[in-house]
Amino acid sequence: MAPAERRTAIIDAARPLVMRHGSGVTTRQIAEAAGIAEGTIFRVFPDKDSVVQAVVTEVFDPDPTLRELAAVDRGLPLRERLTRATEVLQDRLSQVFGLLDALGWIRPPEPEEQRPQPPQAINDAFRAAIADLVGPDESRLRVPAAELAHVLRLLIFSGTHPMISDGRPLNPEQIVAILLDGLAVPTTNEDRAC
Amino acid sequence: MAPAERRTAIIDAARPLVMRHGSGVTTRQIAEAAGIAEGTIFRVFPDKDSVVQAVVTEVFDPDPTLRELAAVDRGLPLRERLTRATEVLQDRLSQVFGLLDALGWIRPPEPEEQRPQPPQAINDAFRAAIADLVGPDESRLRVPAAELAHVLRLLIFSGTHPMISDGRPLNPEQIVAILLDGLAVPTTNEDRAC
Repeated sequence: MAPAERRTAIIDAARPLVMRHGSGVTTRQIAEAAGIAEGTIFRVFPDKDSVVQAVVTEVFDPDPTLRELAAVDRGLPLRERLTRATEVLQDRLSQVFGLLDALGWIRPPEPEEQRPQPPQAINDAFRAAIADLVGPDESRLRVPAAELAHVLRLLIFSGTHPMISDGRPLNPEQIVAILLDGLAVPTTNEDRAC
Repeated sequence: MAPAERRTAIIDAARPLVMRHGSGVTTRQIAEAAGIAEGTIFRVFPDKDSVVQAVVTEVFDPDPTLRELAAVDRGLPLRERLTRATEVLQDRLSQVFGLLDALGWIRPPEPEEQRPQPPQAINDAFRAAIADLVGPDESRLRVPAAELAHVLRLLIFSGTHPMISDGRPLNPEQIVAILLDGLAVPTTNEDRAC
């Protein structure tokens, strides 16, 4: 196995273990899960903390999420595209929140440490990906697509976070229905004001 | 001045100072702001930390917020009642976020320490107050008033938090428009699906 492949295999094996045991994970557990000798880990990583850091970097990496957003079928109706995007983004956030919790961290690591990019840049990229996904349907919105993207992100954040949502997270269909339709019963265009 | 009044006067004077200087505030600053001798503080509080704790307890106290929500004029249209409630709740959250930031805390203190009630109980009380404020207009919603209250809280939380909102907070009118109408251009009842 080439070193790069070995590195990937170790991170893949370590990821669920770090999500479960936090930094209390042992290299023995990681080696067992990867089906390799414990010493093999140290040919790729200087120590256990470096494996944990590599897992953090991977979980925060926005690229897989951006690829999933880019791959959403543009032939689907807007509502379904947004629901799919919400699933993808909730998935990522659940991983991030779960990792922070497992590590006993309260906020994301500083960019200099383990994050591939500053949070602002990542959020900008997600907003751009959502706006791109809205595409020509922007004309059916009463705000620019970029603002819909911002609001979607805010709803997903608080609607997914276990503590902020008081253990009552919103599901993707709920989030998209709030985002597009709101919660008032639609009446006619003229008689819309409550 | 009776001890209870003196206590209140000290907390009132300390509050903006703690918001600005965090736990670095001095009893001298507090005494100056309250217009009293420094020693007078120690007739009411054992030490500076107790003053800071009293400020935290006061900022987290839900009662003034609940009273403001209860006082919203029921004669106003639903949209205006909810906008007023959003202002009140954003105000509270801005104070809470500002205090946590000034103190270098990342999450609220545990209930045993300085919070008057556990967060769940406070959030339940806010949701109940919002639902009460919806009142008979519940029939104009497509969800129960309790669910609107939950969603409103989620939107206010992420739309007010300076970091979560990426420095682009939502204002009360925006929040209520999203909550009631969503972001899609309303069409007819039949042709609503995007």
